[in-house]
Amino acid sequence: MDVPIPEILKKPMEVDEKIMTGAGPSNYHPRIRHAMSLPVLGHLHPETFKIMDDIKIGVNYLLQTNNSYTFCISGSAIECALMNVIEDNDVIVIGCCGQWGTRAENIAKRLNADVKVINKEPGEQIEVEETRIFFEQYHPKVFFLTHGESSTGMLQQNLEQFGNLCQEFDCLFVVDCVITVGCTPVYVDKWKIDVAFMGTQKVLNAPPGISPITFSARAFEKIVKRKSPVKSYNYDAVNLSKYWKSGDEPRVYHHTVCSTLLYGLREAIAIFIENGGLEASWKNHQNVAKHFYTLLEKNGLELFITDPKNRVPSVTAVKVPENIDANEIIKHSMNEYNVEISGGMGQTKGKILRVGLMGINCKEIVAECVAKILIEATRKLNEE
Amino acid sequence: MDVPIPEILKKPMEVDEKIMTGAGPSNYHPRIRHAMSLPVLGHLHPETFKIMDDIKIGVNYLLQTNNSYTFCISGSAIECALMNVIEDNDVIVIGCCGQWGTRAENIAKRLNADVKVINKEPGEQIEVEETRIFFEQYHPKVFFLTHGESSTGMLQQNLEQFGNLCQEFDCLFVVDCVITVGCTPVYVDKWKIDVAFMGTQKVLNAPPGISPITFSARAFEKIVKRKSPVKSYNYDAVNLSKYWKSGDEPRVYHHTVCSTLLYGLREAIAIFIENGGLEASWKNHQNVAKHFYTLLEKNGLELFITDPKNRVPSVTAVKVPENIDANEIIKHSMNEYNVEISGGMGQTKGKILRVGLMGINCKEIVAECVAKILIEATRKLNEE
Repeated sequence: MDVPIPEILKKPMEVDEKIMTGAGPSNYHPRIRHAMSLPVLGHLHPETFKIMDDIKIGVNYLLQTNNSYTFCISGSAIECALMNVIEDNDVIVIGCCGQWGTRAENIAKRLNADVKVINKEPGEQIEVEETRIFFEQYHPKVFFLTHGESSTGMLQQNLEQFGNLCQEFDCLFVVDCVITVGCTPVYVDKWKIDVAFMGTQKVLNAPPGISPITFSARAFEKIVKRKSPVKSYNYDAVNLSKYWKSGDEPRVYHHTVCSTLLYGLREAIAIFIENGGLEASWKNHQNVAKHFYTLLEKNGLELFITDPKNRVPSVTAVKVPENIDANEIIKHSMNEYNVEISGGMGQTKGKILRVGLMGINCKEIVAECVAKILIEATRKLNEE
Repeated sequence: MDVPIPEILKKPMEVDEKIMTGAGPSNYHPRIRHAMSLPVLGHLHPETFKIMDDIKIGVNYLLQTNNSYTFCISGSAIECALMNVIEDNDVIVIGCCGQWGTRAENIAKRLNADVKVINKEPGEQIEVEETRIFFEQYHPKVFFLTHGESSTGMLQQNLEQFGNLCQEFDCLFVVDCVITVGCTPVYVDKWKIDVAFMGTQKVLNAPPGISPITFSARAFEKIVKRKSPVKSYNYDAVNLSKYWKSGDEPRVYHHTVCSTLLYGLREAIAIFIENGGLEASWKNHQNVAKHFYTLLEKNGLELFITDPKNRVPSVTAVKVPENIDANEIIKHSMNEYNVEISGGMGQTKGKILRVGLMGINCKEIVAECVAKILIEATRKLNEE
């Protein structure tokens, strides 16, 4: 053979168990791990369709919508959202105060959109009134907002007012709900969100790689009437809607969906519902987060988002104390306790540490352990 | 709540175990199922990077290449391949004799390429000389070929000659190796293939959703020099190469890869190597396929590809006997025996049945069982 058998593959794989309290992925529930060990199903088997139907119903509950056009993407949901609603030279306004606004900008530019960015400092809110000025000046076809900015721990306010603004200007409202679903209210229909996508690997404790997304009838109608095809076959919402059976027509093959990831997500939603559903989960995430804030602040650590109501309960950003290297804290936590703490991302790199208390990790005792590690590491590094 | 808790999610999920001898996915090996039940790892953990490195080495072995630019896609590999090498108005010649040529055409048109298709009947070979005529007339930047056409069971010949032709015309050679890797020789470097991608859910018995792809240095250089950005962030080979560490620079975060799918793929490659690697697997797939052909032909069933050397050993296409409904055979097999047989796809729908004897299902006894079911179902339906 030109390329010989690689010896390295003869050694077994090593997978350590960690406490996943970074910004995500979070730990799998044991039942989710079991679900993912089940036999494969084909992408066109009736059992698979049943699981897909259940997931669709579950996702609509999680997003509080009655949309027909709800499916999962094998790939990136933010890209799927933008690819479907943007055509060449379309104006998009992006509210940007962190990594996910920046990512939306990156994607929109690749799609040859006319991109107008409301640029704020990391951690700042996008305001409705400044957005209105952009709308009046540029008359965008699409407006993008991040509900929970995982790179700063910020919770964007006033989604419903943004929704009304978008209706007034006949603009599609696209919202990244990756870290907010399950930890704080998200009302897709009530807030008039046209395209929303959520994370699986955050509050749900499910595997990444299968990304739920929903399109309003208004959005879908505009997609059907596009002048140019969606630039990706894989992300084409019309094709996806046929595979996920959004209407009465028979299903049409689209791609080989990974049944294992569907099992994981189905089981995660089932567990979420067994545990009391949205209200119970919102309350728990808010209570545990508050407990965590108190522990940190009592011990002299500062939170990056100063106004408590603007903090997203799932991911908390802690300011790195002066003269301390964030990486040293992260290393200490992982090396000593197998506990993950994330660093900053993009503009916040080196400036913050990020702690995710999500789903099965959203417990007072976990908050206390992570707080203790943060405080201990800071003291230790201060002494050195 | 606007949308109440859905009762349907309170019932447990049902996943039946089937004999997956359709065109794919194939059954998981029990060790692969175990691997996928392991705890989640983060997308930036050193253990994850180690598994990614191992997979890269394993994929290079499977594809017989020394490329640096080898990675896995969370999404569609055919789309990743074409998105990176096509810019607006670039000429691409596509050899089309089945579903995957048609898919490439669909994707290339979405990318605003100038698409020239060598259109053959399903099951026919693309010839080097007719391709040369297209090259002389259109001077394409990209040439796309399917090595194993799963919709017809056809194995494309003369890859090396096509490789030489592409070199002569300074054209990038993109080859779909989804169903050929592991069942018949594939030599990416020797055949001068610039972009090759393979399936995980076929011969490897690994989960779908994580798609290996490799780019030659020549292809990568052209991608780096593109005039316009790749139309997708998720599929951007330059970004992916930084995350998969193709050079000496430190790794750069790209996306949250699903560690569970990496475990499944890593374990699948390890098992493949333990079983003797490529030569052993080629020989086994060829022998079992020949045994299967003999059993079918002896019993009056006809194969869709008449010339045995043009048949791909992993997926065999059987002509549907006259006056018989293909779906009835498929139903009989599934309902009576829990054995999957696939129908045709695209132009071959209703005309052929497809049987995949791949990886752990590539055994004489499995071939004999499926042959027996096909023969039995045909007789039964003839009598009705």
